Amino acid sequence: MKIKYNLLKREKSSKARYGKLETNYGTYETPMFMPVGTKATVKMLTPDELYDMHAGIILSNTYHLWLRPGEDLIDKAGGLHKFMNYNGPILTDSGGFQVFSLAKNKKKDITEEGVHFKSHIDGSNLFLTPEKSIEIQNKLDSDIAMSFDECPPASASHEYLKNSVERTLRWAERGKKVHNNPRQALFGIVQGGAYKDLRKYSAIETVKMDFDGYSIGGVANDGESKEDMYKAIDYSIPYLPEDKVRYLMGVGEPVDIIEGVIRGVDLFDCVLSTRIARHGNAFTRYGKINLKNLKFREDFTPVEESCDCYCCKNFTKAYIRHLIMADESLGARLLSIHNTRFLIKMMEEIRMAIQNDTLLEYREDFLNKYLSRNGEGE
Amino acid sequence: MKIKYNLLKREKSSKARYGKLETNYGTYETPMFMPVGTKATVKMLTPDELYDMHAGIILSNTYHLWLRPGEDLIDKAGGLHKFMNYNGPILTDSGGFQVFSLAKNKKKDITEEGVHFKSHIDGSNLFLTPEKSIEIQNKLDSDIAMSFDECPPASASHEYLKNSVERTLRWAERGKKVHNNPRQALFGIVQGGAYKDLRKYSAIETVKMDFDGYSIGGVANDGESKEDMYKAIDYSIPYLPEDKVRYLMGVGEPVDIIEGVIRGVDLFDCVLSTRIARHGNAFTRYGKINLKNLKFREDFTPVEESCDCYCCKNFTKAYIRHLIMADESLGARLLSIHNTRFLIKMMEEIRMAIQNDTLLEYREDFLNKYLSRNGEGE
Repeated sequence: MKIKYNLLKREKSSKARYGKLETNYGTYETPMFMPVGTKATVKMLTPDELYDMHAGIILSNTYHLWLRPGEDLIDKAGGLHKFMNYNGPILTDSGGFQVFSLAKNKKKDITEEGVHFKSHIDGSNLFLTPEKSIEIQNKLDSDIAMSFDECPPASASHEYLKNSVERTLRWAERGKKVHNNPRQALFGIVQGGAYKDLRKYSAIETVKMDFDGYSIGGVANDGESKEDMYKAIDYSIPYLPEDKVRYLMGVGEPVDIIEGVIRGVDLFDCVLSTRIARHGNAFTRYGKINLKNLKFREDFTPVEESCDCYCCKNFTKAYIRHLIMADESLGARLLSIHNTRFLIKMMEEIRMAIQNDTLLEYREDFLNKYLSRNGEGE
Repeated sequence: MKIKYNLLKREKSSKARYGKLETNYGTYETPMFMPVGTKATVKMLTPDELYDMHAGIILSNTYHLWLRPGEDLIDKAGGLHKFMNYNGPILTDSGGFQVFSLAKNKKKDITEEGVHFKSHIDGSNLFLTPEKSIEIQNKLDSDIAMSFDECPPASASHEYLKNSVERTLRWAERGKKVHNNPRQALFGIVQGGAYKDLRKYSAIETVKMDFDGYSIGGVANDGESKEDMYKAIDYSIPYLPEDKVRYLMGVGEPVDIIEGVIRGVDLFDCVLSTRIARHGNAFTRYGKINLKNLKFREDFTPVEESCDCYCCKNFTKAYIRHLIMADESLGARLLSIHNTRFLIKMMEEIRMAIQNDTLLEYREDFLNKYLSRNGEGE
């Protein structure tokens, strides 16, 4: 089975939507946050910890798995689910983002055929094409695959972006042609920077190819402002079909997620929840906090009293601070659990607000609290 | 309550004993392996993971906790159990071992009063005395505290060791005098290197002071041979009372544990199970293996088919190898679970063999398998 999106409710005060996504591994409510498991592991966490925090789809990176351990090994293992023992749905990206972001300071050569670039591990020459990306994802056997796209920086000119959008459309078509996994959905990706005409063109032409879902890309590459992000969404969403799921790639700041939902997005992913944990940061209702801060030294309360995660139910800020100061990795592990659960819990509240037609009030309430202390983290 | 040791069975073919140790946190069977949680965490693992692998007593290090986060903070948290949320018994060492091992290459000054040395963190001047060590441990509120002892290297002369043993006896007496925690047991430590006369003298004089249990120290310092270790045990054990528990400090190689049990030891601890995990090594019935080895690349079987740990029930060697090669810490975490459970499971078998009077057969069988492949690890 490929995925099937059922739109169940439109929120009255915004473009937000509540739906259910049927997958090979059960049915999940949307809007949804998808934790990122770059190299076939959500950093530091086990599948059981992900189930415990009610994670649904997780994301894994084609580029990283292509390089290590290689798609053929994962194929032999019986696919990515069996390899990493995750019994929930998995989405893989196309590798395009990593090609452009990890090779940022290295020479790369974008041709019609594909992208020549160098491995971030050993500098060896690599060549990724739309066909190769799909072939790798077919073997990984994820539930949702992405089309291979170009991810230009925010500074790219209208002219550059126009050519890029057209190439991405041709790449999408080539990928779709070779896609060959009957249980794997394939998404098209809308690009076009913050330009209204390009987003419209990209969306309309991508939708013509009839994908199983649609992504909005180019909003979390390098240097995009929040305004650019909102424009990219607003200029794309009107042209996407209502009966297909919509995924905003790489976005995971709480405020950005709420704004994305309000604009009609269903799926989000980001490394933020685990990455900031490794630097001692925690999401809270009152903004990010950094546990290294001296004021938490004798704070024998949980990161958040109201949180139902394993970290908050069992440990104090003082203990987690000690672990971080003493370079004990359990600290980052516990904060990874808390931060990821924080976003998943926020999505539960957002879905409830959509069903109650109270999403704008939810945003106001959330922002009032969240921004009151934000900036203390990092 | 302080601990209470009940000797229930002497093995017929050796000096091994089976017993039960009553503690503030339940009754545990001995012989027992105690996982090490140096800085108030068994590296990478949660208390729940320790319960799942049937850990009993865990060990924590006074020196490390004194420096970070400090015993007063842990006292304010309600003691070490509450601070780290471990609801099982905790044993703390005296700090003596760390003073001598971590400051190995640094100048230290051993006086009758105590030891002047430099912090391994910031080089600041520190002074640890028998009274201070006990005072810290009283505040940590562990279930079992150790007397402060000198840990000379294996190369120390008979003359040096004789003076050292006598000083350790005076230090034990001073520590006992200030010990002031009614629910905390205090152990004396037998020293004396591999010298028969010194071990005998140290054991007899230490026992005269009537401690709640007895440790055999100086076998895992620096440069001791296996023969030295066996001598140290054999020369000490005859003078230790039968109704008190006996602890061989810092020993955790499977073969050494079996030899220690056969010689009459009840408690063992070692960082080995978690430390070798961080280098990709796993204990197996057929010796240590290193998961980095290319031959495990496509090995889709668990580390050990017969093992009941979370790692072996859920993941393959190929996946764990991938995690290690990709620098994903989940790999070391899973191997830490397996290796620690391996030793705990081995102790379960050893206790069964004692009850069945088949310990020497168990040793033969274990060694035949274990040494058949040992040396492949590391």
